[in-house]
Amino acid sequence: MSTLVVPDAVPSVFEDCEQLRKAFAGWGTNEGLIISILGHRNAEQRKLIRQTYAEAYGEDLLKELDRELTNDFERVVLLWALDPADRDAFLANEATKKSTSRYQVLMEIACTRSSNHLLHAKQAYHARFKRSLEEDVACHITGDFSKLLFPLVSSYRYEGDEVNMTLAKSEAKILYQKISEKAYSSEDLIRVLATRSRAQINATLNQYKNEFGNDINKDLKTDPNDEFLALMRTTVKCLTRPEKHFEKVLRLAINRRGTDEGALTRVVTTRAEVDLKIIADEYQRRNSVPLDRAIGKDTTGDYEKMLLALAGRAHA
Amino acid sequence: MSTLVVPDAVPSVFEDCEQLRKAFAGWGTNEGLIISILGHRNAEQRKLIRQTYAEAYGEDLLKELDRELTNDFERVVLLWALDPADRDAFLANEATKKSTSRYQVLMEIACTRSSNHLLHAKQAYHARFKRSLEEDVACHITGDFSKLLFPLVSSYRYEGDEVNMTLAKSEAKILYQKISEKAYSSEDLIRVLATRSRAQINATLNQYKNEFGNDINKDLKTDPNDEFLALMRTTVKCLTRPEKHFEKVLRLAINRRGTDEGALTRVVTTRAEVDLKIIADEYQRRNSVPLDRAIGKDTTGDYEKMLLALAGRAHA
Repeated sequence: MSTLVVPDAVPSVFEDCEQLRKAFAGWGTNEGLIISILGHRNAEQRKLIRQTYAEAYGEDLLKELDRELTNDFERVVLLWALDPADRDAFLANEATKKSTSRYQVLMEIACTRSSNHLLHAKQAYHARFKRSLEEDVACHITGDFSKLLFPLVSSYRYEGDEVNMTLAKSEAKILYQKISEKAYSSEDLIRVLATRSRAQINATLNQYKNEFGNDINKDLKTDPNDEFLALMRTTVKCLTRPEKHFEKVLRLAINRRGTDEGALTRVVTTRAEVDLKIIADEYQRRNSVPLDRAIGKDTTGDYEKMLLALAGRAHA
Repeated sequence: MSTLVVPDAVPSVFEDCEQLRKAFAGWGTNEGLIISILGHRNAEQRKLIRQTYAEAYGEDLLKELDRELTNDFERVVLLWALDPADRDAFLANEATKKSTSRYQVLMEIACTRSSNHLLHAKQAYHARFKRSLEEDVACHITGDFSKLLFPLVSSYRYEGDEVNMTLAKSEAKILYQKISEKAYSSEDLIRVLATRSRAQINATLNQYKNEFGNDINKDLKTDPNDEFLALMRTTVKCLTRPEKHFEKVLRLAINRRGTDEGALTRVVTTRAEVDLKIIADEYQRRNSVPLDRAIGKDTTGDYEKMLLALAGRAHA
């Protein structure tokens, strides 16, 4: 459920390129023109624009944008202009180099994308960085975080709907046992979350709740300050109810003192063409205010305009 | 360097199917006819034969072969008839269920295939078993073996030629340190082997030898009876000199009391279209006898004929 609004009659790719070229020309940049084009083209169309622009003007559109734009607006336009797989490669690479607070981004990419999208992101990672995502995760991240994140980014998860109920029961028991022993980074706990299919994990967690009374995430909240436990809970959420995870990221990004533009930009650019509509519905339910109004209240200028275009608010 | 001999003038796929149908008809099976067709068709051609056979006769060629053939001959024909990726999925699944002696098969599939071939094998695994290879490895294998095999089968390895010499030097040092401490299953040792590109591993191991005097595999041979150390050495060999690994598997399969048909069949069917020529050269160098002669001396009947057809001996 995409929020992207592509006009019924899209101009030809040559016209789009010409208009973008104009937006960069002369003194100052026409940001509105850039938003009116790129903010209303899907991944396939943006790819064609990048290719045609390079052929027509011998220049890389991304480099032009990088040169012409600044700050938050630059980042939202640049991330949006990328191929979705390449964007994830870029974000994942950034995340391997940052502090533990960024591990959430890696986990998000590993757990909310389809197996094939994650694969394409890994291929884009090879092309972009001449290394694998796996080696960077294994090399830069240590301890329990690595134990969890490495298999999450590595597994090529099965995506069928089949569920093995006997397995769900036995693994629910194992999870309960490990959590009771506070063995949160135990191999078994991580193995189930990192390798089982979403359908199977869902069955196991339902079984967990039926058999032992609590949502697993409640039992994983013994110490609210434990960052590893927080990452485990986010993993569970991303695998089972991704819209709830993204709603929370947006809520925390918007409601805190000083917006977290990094998180806001990431969620809007990575989900606009996927499920931002569902996330926005969840946001409204949880916060009693429409997502676009909340974004509008918390941001300004071209950055705001671009976010709102991607979030599906009609042309201003 | 394939050993497969495909005739210059291949009959049409319809003729091939008709001949195979004839080979199954009536009392008894015409094994020679089956060998003369399937033993001389490449993966693409065999795929077309399987498809056309199903369309023409409403029967699965693999099931027919399964019904008509027996023992070692059945296994070599069936494995050969499969798509290479599907064959690896089948072999890998078998290996997850057997004793530690079969871990070598998993490691072989993980380390001697290209990243994309390994990916296709994982996709075939999904289709065939409705589960992922990763979850079966993680679930069925435990301890140090799992610590090594899981990242090996999971990583989507980078395959470029670029080498970072600074990294090679620092990681050679880490490897030496861990091996000196006998920390053979340490995260760092496994991380380097499981995630770095082959070019980078090669540079690191060259650096290891230059700096510390020995081949790493010599330093990994402190206890010849340690199965984990043996698997580590095989991993190194498969990543750096796969033809040496396969030569040794063939040598041990042929030279032992009672041939190891499982290993012989596996290496011939999985390598015939890839590098069996190089492996055969290595075999001749190491054993002073041509591989096809050694195979002929150790096997009999239709099984022998099929192996020799795949190993490139001209039509008998």
